[in-house]
Amino acid sequence: MYAQITQFTKMLHTLSRLLDKAQKHAEANGFEPEVLLNARLSPDMLPLTSQVQMACDTAKLATSVLTGKQAPVFANTEETIPELKVLIEKTIEYVTSMKESDFSGWEDRIVAPSGWAGAFLGKDYFYQHGVPNFYFHMVTAYAILRHKGVRIGKMDYIGQLPFLR
Amino acid sequence: MYAQITQFTKMLHTLSRLLDKAQKHAEANGFEPEVLLNARLSPDMLPLTSQVQMACDTAKLATSVLTGKQAPVFANTEETIPELKVLIEKTIEYVTSMKESDFSGWEDRIVAPSGWAGAFLGKDYFYQHGVPNFYFHMVTAYAILRHKGVRIGKMDYIGQLPFLR
Repeated sequence: MYAQITQFTKMLHTLSRLLDKAQKHAEANGFEPEVLLNARLSPDMLPLTSQVQMACDTAKLATSVLTGKQAPVFANTEETIPELKVLIEKTIEYVTSMKESDFSGWEDRIVAPSGWAGAFLGKDYFYQHGVPNFYFHMVTAYAILRHKGVRIGKMDYIGQLPFLR
Repeated sequence: MYAQITQFTKMLHTLSRLLDKAQKHAEANGFEPEVLLNARLSPDMLPLTSQVQMACDTAKLATSVLTGKQAPVFANTEETIPELKVLIEKTIEYVTSMKESDFSGWEDRIVAPSGWAGAFLGKDYFYQHGVPNFYFHMVTAYAILRHKGVRIGKMDYIGQLPFLR
């Protein structure tokens, strides 16, 4: 459950803060924040808006698949940073609505995500698709912002760490 | 242990294959592969060589910290794709040298990685630093190659999935 709820929600909060910095960077430099939302690393890669939507979608879907609980449907029609931040917030709400018992036995449960050609063990699905795919979109979002000159650094991505002492 | 050994080694094998494609792309287009190794997404981000080295370093360090087993020291002097592939291979060898029992109790063990200001619970260290940091370098490596026009796609990054049926 830590692997899902804590990991996803921490990174989603981070993503929301990166978008705040993107918004401020655009305002400080006199351009529309939507320029960043439409930015891509390559013409045949998805733009920032889609990267954020897909990070949220992956966190939501992994949570739903591993718990067997229905996921809310989000329209993915966001066109501004504040709208994307609402999507992130809704995703966090869904992920954190789970209880530890909802994940009970997730590693060895057979899961068959809808729209997929086959079934997996929960741990295979999570560690070989859910997690790598989540970070793919998370880091690509970060990389687009860095590439476009937004003043963020590695520590903005890692965030605060829970030191014991 | 799946979270560490399976996850890291799968993605490291993927990274090695991405480098193969980078090498072939450079050869097919008549430029030195080292051009890609020196490429960055932003002038103040690290180049591809460092991204690969840091992905390896993170996988190695996380394994060492969580098991309490000494990590081999790698010089990180790689200057070519074949040399980086050897580094990846050595990292995989180290990670896969662990037994399940080596990770016993890792989640709630107190760990204090050398050079760090404090101590963590193993699960905090792993899910809030090890994993996000590993994927940071993994996805940035992918993003550099994509940005420079190497013909790779999302499925090269995700790799083969262990379907049950």
